[in-house]
Amino acid sequence: MSRTLHLNAFLMGVGHHEAAWRHPRTDPTRVADVRHFQELARTAERGTLDSVFLADGLAVGPAVRHNIQAVFEPLTLLAALATVTEHVGLIATASTTYNEPFNLARAFASLDHLSGGRAGWNIVTSAQAREAWNFNLDDHPAHADRYRRAAEFVDVAVKLWDSWEDEALVLDAAAGVFADTDRVHPIDHTGDHFRVRGPLNTPRPPQGRPLLVQAGSSADGVAFAGRYAEAVFTAQQTLADAQGFYAALKRATAAAGRDPDGVKVLPGIAPVIGGTEAEARALADELSALIVPEHALAQLSGMTGLDLTGLPLDGPLPDLPDVSAVQSHQSRYQLVVDLARRERLTIRQLITRLGGGRGHRVVAGTPEQIADQIELWFTEGAADGFNVMPPLLPSGLDAFVDHVVPLLRARGLFRHEYTGRTLREHYGLPRPASGYATRELVTA
Amino acid sequence: MSRTLHLNAFLMGVGHHEAAWRHPRTDPTRVADVRHFQELARTAERGTLDSVFLADGLAVGPAVRHNIQAVFEPLTLLAALATVTEHVGLIATASTTYNEPFNLARAFASLDHLSGGRAGWNIVTSAQAREAWNFNLDDHPAHADRYRRAAEFVDVAVKLWDSWEDEALVLDAAAGVFADTDRVHPIDHTGDHFRVRGPLNTPRPPQGRPLLVQAGSSADGVAFAGRYAEAVFTAQQTLADAQGFYAALKRATAAAGRDPDGVKVLPGIAPVIGGTEAEARALADELSALIVPEHALAQLSGMTGLDLTGLPLDGPLPDLPDVSAVQSHQSRYQLVVDLARRERLTIRQLITRLGGGRGHRVVAGTPEQIADQIELWFTEGAADGFNVMPPLLPSGLDAFVDHVVPLLRARGLFRHEYTGRTLREHYGLPRPASGYATRELVTA
Repeated sequence: MSRTLHLNAFLMGVGHHEAAWRHPRTDPTRVADVRHFQELARTAERGTLDSVFLADGLAVGPAVRHNIQAVFEPLTLLAALATVTEHVGLIATASTTYNEPFNLARAFASLDHLSGGRAGWNIVTSAQAREAWNFNLDDHPAHADRYRRAAEFVDVAVKLWDSWEDEALVLDAAAGVFADTDRVHPIDHTGDHFRVRGPLNTPRPPQGRPLLVQAGSSADGVAFAGRYAEAVFTAQQTLADAQGFYAALKRATAAAGRDPDGVKVLPGIAPVIGGTEAEARALADELSALIVPEHALAQLSGMTGLDLTGLPLDGPLPDLPDVSAVQSHQSRYQLVVDLARRERLTIRQLITRLGGGRGHRVVAGTPEQIADQIELWFTEGAADGFNVMPPLLPSGLDAFVDHVVPLLRARGLFRHEYTGRTLREHYGLPRPASGYATRELVTA
Repeated sequence: MSRTLHLNAFLMGVGHHEAAWRHPRTDPTRVADVRHFQELARTAERGTLDSVFLADGLAVGPAVRHNIQAVFEPLTLLAALATVTEHVGLIATASTTYNEPFNLARAFASLDHLSGGRAGWNIVTSAQAREAWNFNLDDHPAHADRYRRAAEFVDVAVKLWDSWEDEALVLDAAAGVFADTDRVHPIDHTGDHFRVRGPLNTPRPPQGRPLLVQAGSSADGVAFAGRYAEAVFTAQQTLADAQGFYAALKRATAAAGRDPDGVKVLPGIAPVIGGTEAEARALADELSALIVPEHALAQLSGMTGLDLTGLPLDGPLPDLPDVSAVQSHQSRYQLVVDLARRERLTIRQLITRLGGGRGHRVVAGTPEQIADQIELWFTEGAADGFNVMPPLLPSGLDAFVDHVVPLLRARGLFRHEYTGRTLREHYGLPRPASGYATRELVTA
């Protein structure tokens, strides 16, 4: 096949639908059971998916009364998944606003070493004031400031991953030379946000650098992705919007002097799968009926950064400020406003629409119908692949792997087996050379 | 048995001897192989050891030319060991100087959830200027300042672990109540170093709090251990010194208002094991002959914080400043100076003595002789157990588990099988109640 789909399994608790844990097909105690996630990772590998992915946030608020996003910290959980899988990529979300680059570069290098080259980093800047309060701040830094720090953070991390050349580890027992220190470089970074001497305290990871992933679709986010990202997760509700975003991101990538094929665009899709369309719709309705409206309103408030609690559920959204005034989740904010206006939704209808995927596209249907939608977006310039968000876990991932993946394979759109070992190889991306590797060395 | 030994396996690369990687019994490529560490953890579990432990540092210097301390970051590596073991405790070193308490409390909670209650935290303040340079600083903070920050850091971490009461997770699917938010508490911490609102973004870990371990034996370190530590790793060269330290630490614990039995003192021991004493001594000599003097001098310089490179190897140590002037590794500094003076060692003799355990006690002999030394220190008020530091890995840990542990069991000093599941249970320590759990709740 000339061009192949890329599929990521987005793992979240017992499912992406916000009421998943209340449905009889899930066991909510498994949110704290590592074996649950190990089984999901093995299922993804059975489906030859490119990767699994964990979102993250650095605070909980009152919404935890009705749901939890995660019990485990992503890097430690992925390390535990690495040991029970051989091929599937392992992508962890981590914040550039509330970490130090040395610590994070090192943790991702460690995960890449542990997994034989399967680590990916979903770079986020964090968005909630509640997160800032856990890190000595009164409020979260402004959107543009967070992105400036993020850019410098990634620059430092890349230098640290590159600081050991690939050939630095010589292990010459006879001579007593463990590492060729001429090939281990201080990075001497001094910038607006960070001063980091380096080198990193670990040899260069198997992939050279972990796969860099990004998920913010605001103007700042697209510019950032164009410069750094190798895969982009995005929420898109319509084919036209997805095509527009896809083209904009490829343009931003070219504008940054990079090959547009060097970044893979993966819109989210929450597939509600049934043996018949009616079965799929019945499952979607069961889940909608389990939504706790106060929780959904709190989620919507968090997504828009506005307090919507107390508004009448059967009325419209109030007039909302322009996106430029919003300091968090700008792209998700715009999506929600557009969706509500385009379809003239009441608040109740809106929270039902959002309950399945927090703004990501929900598609209910048979495996054929799901595969058709995937093929359509893939061939019509809207996607290089998909971020698959099963409403219920594990059952929804099993259904996708057992019933949708075979159709995609039969249509020549997806791999029948892994052809590479590293996450970069799955995504068809090169292993970057160290920025320090071009230096000529005088050898005796 | 009334009082039982506690044994920890300190895992480091392919062995604790600084030249271990050059010895024909090791394979230095395994320093970057997670399976090596998984096998070591399983060996420790076969020996019913209490725990395995990983040291850590946040920089590498020129010494990496001749050796490496670690490729993996401890928390991610231990997560990978958790999945292949069932009982053995998992203790990671992490710095209070170069982390944020929210991130670290959360990572340890995650490891505790992943492992079913087997996480321990070796609390260090970091000691090298080279580490400070990786975290925006020109030099490392002074010793006393680091300990003040450490105390507040641990206070915050404990509040975060306690912030979810044990009964907070209700998972009432019918009512749609995931967590009882009356039992999930903000911590509202405001101190000299940190402002943290909380609560933590994960339910209370299985052990309530991970086991708190400490390894600094300076005056500040002992005071800190008395207040917080539940296990203490320490370097002691003689029975008399170890008895003095043991008594001082128990006094410091009582002075902090805690039960002296609530802290377990584990001196390091590097057992060089042979079928005969002559075999053991021959192995020790083989290792000494592989020491690279420049590397050993650099290590000694790092340990003392003084540049000793260039001094004649066959001369004595120069006059050195009083320990109170030293800002890093105070207790190890004192130990080295005392050892050199007591035995009138040349620098070459000193580096040979230190090569086996970086200041920890090296005992070469038969399994019986090793067991005798362990029993002596255990029964003579010098130790509650030992931090076992095999010179070669895996062979030295295999020898300890297969030949020394059976003797300790036969003497009634050590368990024949695990009687608990958590790290706290192995160390005979209670599960602490949440500091927020005493609040009366009005129930309907």
